[in-house]
Amino acid sequence: MKIRLGMVGGGTGAFIGEVHRIAARLDDRYELVAGAFNSDADRARQSAEALGIKSDRAYANFSEMAGAECARADGIDVVAIVTPNNLHHAPAKCFLKAGIHVICDKPLTSSLDDALDLKRLVDETGLLFAVTYNYSGYPMVRQAREMIRNGDLGTLRVVQVEYPQEWLSTDLESTGQKQAAWRMDPAQAGPGGSLGDIGTHAFHLAEFITGLEVKSLLAELNAFVAGRLLDDNAQIMLRFANGARGSIWASQVAVGHENGLRVRVYGDQASLEWFQEQPNQLKFCRLGATAQFLTRGGVAAGSAANSASRTPGGHPEGFLEAFANLYRDFADQIEAFKKGKSINDLGLSVPSVTEGVKGVQFVEKAVASSENGGVWLSLES
Amino acid sequence: MKIRLGMVGGGTGAFIGEVHRIAARLDDRYELVAGAFNSDADRARQSAEALGIKSDRAYANFSEMAGAECARADGIDVVAIVTPNNLHHAPAKCFLKAGIHVICDKPLTSSLDDALDLKRLVDETGLLFAVTYNYSGYPMVRQAREMIRNGDLGTLRVVQVEYPQEWLSTDLESTGQKQAAWRMDPAQAGPGGSLGDIGTHAFHLAEFITGLEVKSLLAELNAFVAGRLLDDNAQIMLRFANGARGSIWASQVAVGHENGLRVRVYGDQASLEWFQEQPNQLKFCRLGATAQFLTRGGVAAGSAANSASRTPGGHPEGFLEAFANLYRDFADQIEAFKKGKSINDLGLSVPSVTEGVKGVQFVEKAVASSENGGVWLSLES
Amino acid sequence: MKIRLGMVGGGTGAFIGEVHRIAARLDDRYELVAGAFNSDADRARQSAEALGIKSDRAYANFSEMAGAECARADGIDVVAIVTPNNLHHAPAKCFLKAGIHVICDKPLTSSLDDALDLKRLVDETGLLFAVTYNYSGYPMVRQAREMIRNGDLGTLRVVQVEYPQEWLSTDLESTGQKQAAWRMDPAQAGPGGSLGDIGTHAFHLAEFITGLEVKSLLAELNAFVAGRLLDDNAQIMLRFANGARGSIWASQVAVGHENGLRVRVYGDQASLEWFQEQPNQLKFCRLGATAQFLTRGGVAAGSAANSASRTPGGHPEGFLEAFANLYRDFADQIEAFKKGKSINDLGLSVPSVTEGVKGVQFVEKAVASSENGGVWLSLES
Amino acid sequence: MKIRLGMVGGGTGAFIGEVHRIAARLDDRYELVAGAFNSDADRARQSAEALGIKSDRAYANFSEMAGAECARADGIDVVAIVTPNNLHHAPAKCFLKAGIHVICDKPLTSSLDDALDLKRLVDETGLLFAVTYNYSGYPMVRQAREMIRNGDLGTLRVVQVEYPQEWLSTDLESTGQKQAAWRMDPAQAGPGGSLGDIGTHAFHLAEFITGLEVKSLLAELNAFVAGRLLDDNAQIMLRFANGARGSIWASQVAVGHENGLRVRVYGDQASLEWFQEQPNQLKFCRLGATAQFLTRGGVAAGSAANSASRTPGGHPEGFLEAFANLYRDFADQIEAFKKGKSINDLGLSVPSVTEGVKGVQFVEKAVASSENGGVWLSLES
Repeated sequence: MKIRLGMVGGGTGAFIGEVHRIAARLDDRYELVAGAFNSDADRARQSAEALGIKSDRAYANFSEMAGAECARADGIDVVAIVTPNNLHHAPAKCFLKAGIHVICDKPLTSSLDDALDLKRLVDETGLLFAVTYNYSGYPMVRQAREMIRNGDLGTLRVVQVEYPQEWLSTDLESTGQKQAAWRMDPAQAGPGGSLGDIGTHAFHLAEFITGLEVKSLLAELNAFVAGRLLDDNAQIMLRFANGARGSIWASQVAVGHENGLRVRVYGDQASLEWFQEQPNQLKFCRLGATAQFLTRGGVAAGSAANSASRTPGGHPEGFLEAFANLYRDFADQIEAFKKGKSINDLGLSVPSVTEGVKGVQFVEKAVASSENGGVWLSLES
Repeated sequence: MKIRLGMVGGGTGAFIGEVHRIAARLDDRYELVAGAFNSDADRARQSAEALGIKSDRAYANFSEMAGAECARADGIDVVAIVTPNNLHHAPAKCFLKAGIHVICDKPLTSSLDDALDLKRLVDETGLLFAVTYNYSGYPMVRQAREMIRNGDLGTLRVVQVEYPQEWLSTDLESTGQKQAAWRMDPAQAGPGGSLGDIGTHAFHLAEFITGLEVKSLLAELNAFVAGRLLDDNAQIMLRFANGARGSIWASQVAVGHENGLRVRVYGDQASLEWFQEQPNQLKFCRLGATAQFLTRGGVAAGSAANSASRTPGGHPEGFLEAFANLYRDFADQIEAFKKGKSINDLGLSVPSVTEGVKGVQFVEKAVASSENGGVWLSLES
Repeated sequence: MKIRLGMVGGGTGAFIGEVHRIAARLDDRYELVAGAFNSDADRARQSAEALGIKSDRAYANFSEMAGAECARADGIDVVAIVTPNNLHHAPAKCFLKAGIHVICDKPLTSSLDDALDLKRLVDETGLLFAVTYNYSGYPMVRQAREMIRNGDLGTLRVVQVEYPQEWLSTDLESTGQKQAAWRMDPAQAGPGGSLGDIGTHAFHLAEFITGLEVKSLLAELNAFVAGRLLDDNAQIMLRFANGARGSIWASQVAVGHENGLRVRVYGDQASLEWFQEQPNQLKFCRLGATAQFLTRGGVAAGSAANSASRTPGGHPEGFLEAFANLYRDFADQIEAFKKGKSINDLGLSVPSVTEGVKGVQFVEKAVASSENGGVWLSLES
Repeated sequence: MKIRLGMVGGGTGAFIGEVHRIAARLDDRYELVAGAFNSDADRARQSAEALGIKSDRAYANFSEMAGAECARADGIDVVAIVTPNNLHHAPAKCFLKAGIHVICDKPLTSSLDDALDLKRLVDETGLLFAVTYNYSGYPMVRQAREMIRNGDLGTLRVVQVEYPQEWLSTDLESTGQKQAAWRMDPAQAGPGGSLGDIGTHAFHLAEFITGLEVKSLLAELNAFVAGRLLDDNAQIMLRFANGARGSIWASQVAVGHENGLRVRVYGDQASLEWFQEQPNQLKFCRLGATAQFLTRGGVAAGSAANSASRTPGGHPEGFLEAFANLYRDFADQIEAFKKGKSINDLGLSVPSVTEGVKGVQFVEKAVASSENGGVWLSLES
């Protein structure tokens, strides 16, 4: 019995909507049965048709959809929200109120107040809520986390995360390119530009992989492209709760990089390096030993990586498979929920509304630090 | 309207069967509705159930399945055959006779006679037949082929293909490991060991990418593991019809390699290098210029690569997406067939029964060359 | 006629002394004829003998040496000072006063006052003074600088420099290891640990390659090894005079790195990346184009790189050749000086006392920033 | 007391002569005191002057030089012969007869008869003779050899050596480029083109690193550039005495490669890979374990590598240092010879006249194999 999935946003031509659909399909756990794919009713209908959605479940907007679906016996179990940042909060709230689980793209919302509001509602309803910090779905990211948990690196000292991209090196938002336009529009994206789009991924991974909490940060944000309203380059220093130090560099004016997310963690016993563009390997160096390259599916891969893999070593898995791992884990959570079981027992690593809130807080604090000339700000509430 | 797919072999736990299913699912063009998943009837039924196949379409064997499906109004359009090499010919023949298109794993058969028999039948019936030389589904492999077709490399001179793997470095077939057992059993695999399993991929890619035909070859086959019945290391020299020279090294005793397929092509104007374990890039060097790295989704990617891509540059796609590209292209062929159109107009690059025959011929000639002490043999009929 | 060279420090077993000697020898421009190789007179004599120095020019200390050499008709033209940081100022001053040119290892001194004192003396005497920021001797570093000067990168936006090493991840200074002992002793090293040892290289390269000046910095220094007296990890944010932003990460507790100096520069038209452990290549990416790898000796290498090369492309040159380039350029300066010519006309890129002063200022400002909790400090005098 | 060195060939502007001189200088063991640098007497004199050779030891030709030097009390100990292949035999013979040790560039001679003649003379005179198969001087090449000797790889199965270069992809020899002109002239180079120039390096390394002997070979030689008189592409299959198999690919029409010598050795316990353009690392994979990267100067480097190193790990050494290692080892041999000690006790790895003979035999057999249509030929006498 497949899980019934609905979608808000993600009409034909949208990048991330199609990614969510492939991710849902890959392991055959979901069935896409309903959607409000576009704010324009005609386009919404066309997208639904192209996606094989029956006409009575092709909705003009999310509130109509939430109402109708929660009234059906075969209504959706879960909705995926894949709209711009400022359009996450309202539908997420609406579906939670209708008793429907939520998968929401990141960052969770465009303001911390909205994020906290959703967290409150999740706590109240007890419903499941996933935020697609999808890079945490990569097998070797999970391997890294597992190794650090196992103590393989010893006490952590330094965490370096970078996420350079080239694509906003010019004033793309003024050319009508839709992906650029909303990301650099404060009304749609919130206060962070590259910070919200990719910096939040970097921040999430820093905490996800290390298991450490960032205690305070100092940020230097710049908009290098003339006329740009939001940051396109962010340099951030991090102090972790255990005394470790770190930095994040997120840039969308880094000519030559496609999607260059890289995480390096140094402990007193060993270090790890993972690079998103070659995601099937993990560099691992023990103190006083030669560097090793662990591989997905290889002999050193542990259970966290293996349970997130579909093929043997040497058969590259990528972005879509990693994304699908979040969907697969969330399917397990939904199945457990249906059976009245606690999802905590599953030991799954799906970022939740809690991580969603932290990501939005990260954006707001970084903006505040930078606006104050680059000062240290605490992330502790 | 999805294409109705059946499967022969590929019961629970089989590696390649699951790969075919994911590939079929990725783009939502197929629906798996029938299967004879195992030669053991009980297991066949269990696999069918686990895969959500209705009980009346879970068959005990392929001939029963072919008979029943061709009699149904909603019978399968196409069957995927994912059994060991020696069990390709009989079901393929049976389904072709039943008027059903075939997707067959490689190598096509375990003997050239069988291969030619299938080719005859395909020619007679006019049905569609794909052989899953899946590496040709990688976007940057298709990019390489397109660039060579466009003349970007000039006249080709040297073609170096290698396919090293470690996994059969020990006598794995005696341990009960199933994947090893049938591959090193002449009765199931045919006359080639590593030659048939991976050498045929290398050979296919050499011709697929370059557009050249191999005219003659000389092979040196070895079984380095004591007691092994088929080759685990093959070194082969190639002479191409245009005068180019080349070599293939296929090895399953190459410690340290997971799935190290690598193709390098040198022309008088430029060269190309593609490596399966980092499949999203293509090294390209023009004569007298600096080396470039072209990327899938990047600025230099042409239509062949782009039409085989699902995500932007920097978002790694891998083995499953490449496999799915063959399924997607074959879906286009089936749709065209239904409409009575020629598939030649589609310009698609699905390896057919013709490439299947060539692969089997390659195996037989290489074995003959080696058995005769390493002599040159013509591949021209 | 070779240049007559003397040396202070660098007795048998010293690392950097031998590097200076090989560098001086490589192009046959110098002859080592005198030395005060050790503060212990016996050892000094033994080292001199082992190095083939005549006994009357094997001195017990630098002041004796300066006096004797400046009195000889065949006295040394130049002295190389290769002692710990705190022992640079006195001998440098002494030789300058004796009218002898100076090559001094970095950092110039262990205090800014000392550094400024030397600068004053150089200005007064008009003598030549080199500080061996040796990484600026690499051909592809010079290529990078030349390309940026030529405008190939457009307006610079971001400069990322990192210099991770593993070797001080444990309390090596307490084990009696001499290299560690003086580097982590404030009395010998000055106020910076990793900051002075490798951070100054990073800082120098940042300015050398980009041609930009750092206007202000903010530093976070840590000593992760218990009991350590100086920093072993430094994270520094940079603001450049033209508005560009940057960062330096220098660490000697970065497990897995040997000598991982890496410089990345991003402009609005292109970017560059250079990595010291693979120094013969330079990654170059134009906006909206594929990544290229320029090589030393390759087709894209310009005059700055070529004049610093000794072999064709593909024949790796390394650390010693780069070091020798400083010696070679300084030999040209000395020859010009002898002929009364201006060294400015030579267009050479030997770091001088000016760069030496900036390096020491960098250390002092970074320490001050960190001690004040991580605040921005101006580097403008 | 330095060793007195003379040189035949290598006048100003010659590539390899200058390499020999730097190599001789690097460790301060030699003094260049005499030379016949050019067949043109005027140029020979000019080169000598530029190199600081006294006029009475600047000779017009090698026979004059051999006569004069062996008559001097301070005559040269050793001569380096750096002329084109066809001009190795006569001077080598002449200096051996004059009682002077010889360092000869590779290949030893342009015919096997000449090579055997020199070997006979070396055996008769008992003098020292080095052939500069310089790639054997790389620390990590020696590390590879040591590991194989130690049994770290188990029984060797496959040896893959390749040596691709681009530089003769066009008809460079017709443009007046001197390096190309003599290398593609059978009268000067002998019967092998790329075979003699680089194939011999590949062959030597295959035996040097593995300690195995090649028993027979089969070669396919081509001259892809129209009008070229010697091979520019060589593909060779190897059978080793222990049953291992291997191949050599040497090409000078391989667009995109500068000096891409790569050696891979596979045993039943582990494998090794070394690449000349990144010579400070060695990839090492144990059966069933993760890949490791051993580094020069790193923790896993053994005595063979360490004794051939001058700097710590992470400080790249390159082509010149490797070349210098042969000179250094040969200096040790000469010192031992002077003291009447056996050089065998030194455990040094300088290629001798024996390896020189094997290299020439390799060329002749490969040419014969190819001329006979690609047949197996024994290398056993």
